Amino acid sequence: MKDTLIVLSGGLDSVTLLYAERERVALAVTFDYGANHAAREIAAAAANTARLGIPHAVIPLSFIRERFRSSLLEGAAAVPDGHYAAENMKSTVVPFRNGIMLAIAAGLAESNGLARIALASHAGDHAIYPDCRPEFDAAMADAVRLGTWAGVLLDAPFAQADKAAIVRFGASLGVDFRETYSCYKGGAKHCGTCGTCTERREAFALAGVPDPTEYETTEPKGE
Amino acid sequence: MKDTLIVLSGGLDSVTLLYAERERVALAVTFDYGANHAAREIAAAAANTARLGIPHAVIPLSFIRERFRSSLLEGAAAVPDGHYAAENMKSTVVPFRNGIMLAIAAGLAESNGLARIALASHAGDHAIYPDCRPEFDAAMADAVRLGTWAGVLLDAPFAQADKAAIVRFGASLGVDFRETYSCYKGGAKHCGTCGTCTERREAFALAGVPDPTEYETTEPKGE
Repeated sequence: MKDTLIVLSGGLDSVTLLYAERERVALAVTFDYGANHAAREIAAAAANTARLGIPHAVIPLSFIRERFRSSLLEGAAAVPDGHYAAENMKSTVVPFRNGIMLAIAAGLAESNGLARIALASHAGDHAIYPDCRPEFDAAMADAVRLGTWAGVLLDAPFAQADKAAIVRFGASLGVDFRETYSCYKGGAKHCGTCGTCTERREAFALAGVPDPTEYETTEPKGE
Repeated sequence: MKDTLIVLSGGLDSVTLLYAERERVALAVTFDYGANHAAREIAAAAANTARLGIPHAVIPLSFIRERFRSSLLEGAAAVPDGHYAAENMKSTVVPFRNGIMLAIAAGLAESNGLARIALASHAGDHAIYPDCRPEFDAAMADAVRLGTWAGVLLDAPFAQADKAAIVRFGASLGVDFRETYSCYKGGAKHCGTCGTCTERREAFALAGVPDPTEYETTEPKGE
């Protein structure tokens, strides 16, 4: 039964979820909010949906780049290197980005007769992003359920999984991780040193899965 | 203290709230979701913010017209006449429209250092719109508070007021109701017979305030 809209960033978490739910997904939605890495994320999302024969919508949110503040919108040089835990990672927050994406996903789901939204948020998502926390997810799920005719369900199947578990799961599903993109700097290769790249490299290492990603470097700048 | 972002449709409820909160409002935001009446709503919103010297942002949401289904997006002929209570009013629902607008308002508030969103939803808002119900408002307020650094407050000062009370309040504040627009059909004059026009006429009558609105007719078609 095709009952699901998936929020597909083109990163390895959401592409793994796409593969896991390929029989249920009626529509994959990628949001273009003008991030440094938007074009490469969208290309990765499109490559995977095309291979699986799943309709793919890209929703432009130009107002975010025009009116919001975040280093994620200001070019590669503005993106800090290192672990998410660091204080400077706060600069990469795009205010209420997940809330906006989920609200639009809810409207699209209801418009398309779909009663479920699948989201690849996971246990490793970061407390520096208020709209990645479980309490936010629960409140937003209530809002989406109550604010739609169909009582649309916001479902996060990876909520209890860490990123290494997702890498292992994706490998078992045949995901080609070279066709997933997550670097905040948006270069042709993953930089290897920003928050998402650091996390990505560690997840493959912890999972014991060979990392096919081409990185510019695995040494943080200036160290 | 300028601590507030207001969601300003340009209708009489939100313009009255704008006047009531003119000393607190740092930014007024109008969403252009391609509705039949968008241009006239936006003009009304702009006229009032210009007079009060309040910054006004119009956020284009072209994806709604392109991808959502609603009679509100399909031209005047698609809009039903009569009371909101009628079953056919469901066709005017834009799925999760309020959820989308509030999510974007939350991101804009946080980006602009504003910790409060003022919304003119009121006791007469309609149960046929799931995202106008108090339960939805409460859940969305939780999501906005939890999903922002500042714990942005979603505040609906008119939540307990009916539309007649708002008309009386607006009149006392000096609102020029001729510069508010709400007709779903989007004509130069208010049609007088769609759901919002019916409600508008009744609110002035109940309030005992002279209605300065020019209507095309006050007789429903075909009666």
